[in-house]
Amino acid sequence: MANEFEIIEQYFSGVGPVAECTKLGIGDDAAVVEVPPGQQLVVAMDTLIEGRHFPLDTNPADLAYKALAVNLSDLAAMAADPSWFLLSLTLPDNDPHWLSQFANSLKQTADTFDLQLIGGDTCRGSLAISVQIAGLVPRGEYVRRAGAMPGDIVLVSGELGNAALGLADKQAGLELSPALQAKCSLALNRPRPRLELIPFLRDFASSAIDISDGLVGDLGHIIVASGCGARIARVAIPVNEWIERNDAYPYALDAGDDYEICCTLPAEHSDEVDSWNHSHPECRLTPIGEITEDGYFLRDGEELIDLDKRQGYRHFE
Amino acid sequence: MANEFEIIEQYFSGVGPVAECTKLGIGDDAAVVEVPPGQQLVVAMDTLIEGRHFPLDTNPADLAYKALAVNLSDLAAMAADPSWFLLSLTLPDNDPHWLSQFANSLKQTADTFDLQLIGGDTCRGSLAISVQIAGLVPRGEYVRRAGAMPGDIVLVSGELGNAALGLADKQAGLELSPALQAKCSLALNRPRPRLELIPFLRDFASSAIDISDGLVGDLGHIIVASGCGARIARVAIPVNEWIERNDAYPYALDAGDDYEICCTLPAEHSDEVDSWNHSHPECRLTPIGEITEDGYFLRDGEELIDLDKRQGYRHFE
Repeated sequence: MANEFEIIEQYFSGVGPVAECTKLGIGDDAAVVEVPPGQQLVVAMDTLIEGRHFPLDTNPADLAYKALAVNLSDLAAMAADPSWFLLSLTLPDNDPHWLSQFANSLKQTADTFDLQLIGGDTCRGSLAISVQIAGLVPRGEYVRRAGAMPGDIVLVSGELGNAALGLADKQAGLELSPALQAKCSLALNRPRPRLELIPFLRDFASSAIDISDGLVGDLGHIIVASGCGARIARVAIPVNEWIERNDAYPYALDAGDDYEICCTLPAEHSDEVDSWNHSHPECRLTPIGEITEDGYFLRDGEELIDLDKRQGYRHFE
Repeated sequence: MANEFEIIEQYFSGVGPVAECTKLGIGDDAAVVEVPPGQQLVVAMDTLIEGRHFPLDTNPADLAYKALAVNLSDLAAMAADPSWFLLSLTLPDNDPHWLSQFANSLKQTADTFDLQLIGGDTCRGSLAISVQIAGLVPRGEYVRRAGAMPGDIVLVSGELGNAALGLADKQAGLELSPALQAKCSLALNRPRPRLELIPFLRDFASSAIDISDGLVGDLGHIIVASGCGARIARVAIPVNEWIERNDAYPYALDAGDDYEICCTLPAEHSDEVDSWNHSHPECRLTPIGEITEDGYFLRDGEELIDLDKRQGYRHFE
């Protein structure tokens, strides 16, 4: 059986293009990197655990993709360009077929998103994938959760709820159309980190977060961090036709894993949204409400539902 | 039950002194750091898994200490000063007693080693602790595994085998003296990362590694990376009296977890070793052999044992 060093040499050397700032990559006690003058390093770490973050039968190629995508999504939300990552891979056994599928997909994904694997470790145990990612941003241009101001527009990218609907369909069979089923399955297994939004966020956003825990919970983080409130309208939430027809908005409001971006924008920049949407039909930004002085509400037809900043949608269901 | 955000806020805010280079710490999608001009960032990631890297009944305070210590040891081996870390903590449940013991020890350890916790995540699953650490080094002054040259002296810090002997004693009861038992138990549960060696390594070492997999295996990494050989003498290996009396050198040669430093030194600097040892009696450096053109041998009395660069001591037992 291959040992730790052999696994790293055989499968994980040369994953991703060599980043200019990498001085020493895989193969020593640590890696050495530089940060270009005038830039800051943005770092995040996210772990995926078998049975909690993904079903037991998830294929290794999807898993490698998703382990990077959820971390890339954090960089997108901070407006940082991907640079390098470390991988800690815990494996129950040492199946060469599984490992090569995982490593090939990791390599492909790292190439796609211009991200170099520079170190990490492998161990034995129940399947878990921990990625520590780093990106670069010009000094001071990163975007925080804090920063939203009363009067700002609340925007979300893409459609919400597709990943959760994909999971529900996989688990229970919801009789979705083949096209919708394909879209939702893609949203679940291959969520696209919204890196294309980085220039927009740097130029215009007052705050941003990626939607990993559900819109209500994640926008809740923005208003807690910013010390303000928000009011959003159910009718404005961008959802697919099945969610709309079945009035199944909890998929879009409460369920996580969409990895779309929720951000806020000073109202004076509202024209920039139209211009963005005109040039980026694949990554539309939809206004769903506004930042207020205090309180957190969802307008649902005649009703004004009081949301809990900290507990999200679950709390009031 | 506390959720992920509450765990982070309650237990992991304010761990470690605020590092000057940290611009944004815990509580956003990512942290933001700067690297001072003329410095490079040295990054490593090590995961500890219950049942593999530590026994099931290890107390949480020791665990928090060790999770940082094994990563700090990687920085020491690269000659980088500790700066900040990210923590991914996977917990089977949410025992407040366990969590506060773990967090208190983490805070104490982070304070001791001047290391700030700036982010990470918590999840549910079997107990695992993943730490990604970062340190700083003046540009180009880091020390690699590669760099040893024929004629260099091979040195190790401290005594080897104490951690493995401590584990064997805990598992089987070896009738060690109380003083030796205490020393070995400390080596196992509270290994001291050899950060004090950093200035020495920067000034004089041609290569270095920390001994986590056993001396023979780890020195093997140095000679593979450096493209040379080595010859070491069993009689020179610094061990405790029990190992010497019982001729139990495999504890010192093959077993890991010592977290001492093995480094190589151009022979012209040999006087520096005496002067180091004079001023650092708690962190003595012992010459154990020399770097050669090729081959890897252990002199054991009359015998010259052929070591395998890649498999370590296990291979020839």
